Amino acid sequence: MIIIAEKINGSIPSMGKAIAEHDVEHIKDIARRQAEAIGDNGYIDCCASVDVDEVETLHWMIDAIQEVTDAPIAVDSPSAEACIGAMKYCNKPGMINSISGEGNKMEVVLPVIADTPWTVMALLCDDSGIPKDAEGRIKVLDRIMAECKKYGIAEDRVFIDPMVEMICTAEEGISIVLDVIKYCKKTYPEVHISGAISNISFNLPYRKILNIAFVVTCMAFGMDSGVLDPLSRDLLGAIYAAECMSGEDYYCMEYISAFREGLFGPKQ
Amino acid sequence: MIIIAEKINGSIPSMGKAIAEHDVEHIKDIARRQAEAIGDNGYIDCCASVDVDEVETLHWMIDAIQEVTDAPIAVDSPSAEACIGAMKYCNKPGMINSISGEGNKMEVVLPVIADTPWTVMALLCDDSGIPKDAEGRIKVLDRIMAECKKYGIAEDRVFIDPMVEMICTAEEGISIVLDVIKYCKKTYPEVHISGAISNISFNLPYRKILNIAFVVTCMAFGMDSGVLDPLSRDLLGAIYAAECMSGEDYYCMEYISAFREGLFGPKQ
Repeated sequence: MIIIAEKINGSIPSMGKAIAEHDVEHIKDIARRQAEAIGDNGYIDCCASVDVDEVETLHWMIDAIQEVTDAPIAVDSPSAEACIGAMKYCNKPGMINSISGEGNKMEVVLPVIADTPWTVMALLCDDSGIPKDAEGRIKVLDRIMAECKKYGIAEDRVFIDPMVEMICTAEEGISIVLDVIKYCKKTYPEVHISGAISNISFNLPYRKILNIAFVVTCMAFGMDSGVLDPLSRDLLGAIYAAECMSGEDYYCMEYISAFREGLFGPKQ
Repeated sequence: MIIIAEKINGSIPSMGKAIAEHDVEHIKDIARRQAEAIGDNGYIDCCASVDVDEVETLHWMIDAIQEVTDAPIAVDSPSAEACIGAMKYCNKPGMINSISGEGNKMEVVLPVIADTPWTVMALLCDDSGIPKDAEGRIKVLDRIMAECKKYGIAEDRVFIDPMVEMICTAEEGISIVLDVIKYCKKTYPEVHISGAISNISFNLPYRKILNIAFVVTCMAFGMDSGVLDPLSRDLLGAIYAAECMSGEDYYCMEYISAFREGLFGPKQ
């Protein structure tokens, strides 16, 4: 599971405050703890969520993160230009988070990352919003994958987000997401399947257990990445446990080792 | 999800002590709390796990349970004769837990329950033990279903246990269990798919999260019953959450209602 650690995001009130007050220690503390939790196989997301000076703010945040960890950074902005503007401050290749079928996002991002090792998160929405059915999202997926191919971007550099929506208004449960996952696994076997896990539980109580049920269900069908909070101990434990279920974790060695490191389970 | 609540079992040390000491209040307390947790759609398992006077002990335990709840009882013994001997003490039809391909279990149980509404748990093992692959277990399943048919026992009165084994020694993860579940769903669509959930996590730390990942994964493929501890709050919450994922719980009404009743989530 490739975790994109989501907590350095200005839209989270405490992080927004830290960014506004240039509280570098808060950012470093969260970066350090998230990096410990995700291990060698993930990204630290970095989203400023500010109205002005976005690239400068991202620059400052990226510097703070890189003071404490070598983990690659997912440069996160609704503006493709801001992502491209900030990527040069990263010490090593990371992820552009994100493109989609909207506007000129693909034109802005894909040529820039084409001949680099950077990866990209692709949201399955377009100028009409989020398609209401799996077929609509698959159309966007096919269009994005065709563009990536044009630029020589290999499948395994693409992470797709099937668009996770809140379950409390979804009559059919998560069947749209699962249909997109199944199609993607079959059609683009090397593409990573990701998504914003906690979106599923908006407006419901005890969100933790819904997030767990969602990620475990999606992993059973091939999800191998997630934008999530790796400091949510039971969620992280459930991801390790789901790897045991799928046979990805021989003899549960990774599970046992993560438990011994204190990454999940009762706090010491 | 049809829960078979597992805590009234003499092989659990505290319950074994209560049975030995005829501590009726302990049994009543656990029966009452389990009945609250499973709602209208489950069973209270009753297993004496004693070397002598098993039917008499089951009789006394069944009476204790029936003093506090109307929930149907799963009469549980490795001895088919003991199950049949004790079922007459139940005020309403319940479940025989269990038959399998071993010895004469089917001959003893099936004719007795044939013309009743009693249900039966069927373990997919035989005189050679637990088959090492899905094909072997499916052979036992087919044999059991053929016998049930002979006695006119409808599919929806049969609960199968695909034999849940500890994951820590399973190289392939739970693929055997999932293969059996998929075959069963396709071939016998009305049969209930159950199993002893917590077996999965033997010999591993933080068993709770493995049990959750296991039951959620199996539910994604059609499991609709489980022998488990409904007083494990996060496990019960995860089952409600998994029903939301599958679209079985429209607008998450059952989830919200169970949360409001205090069945899961932080203790009040």
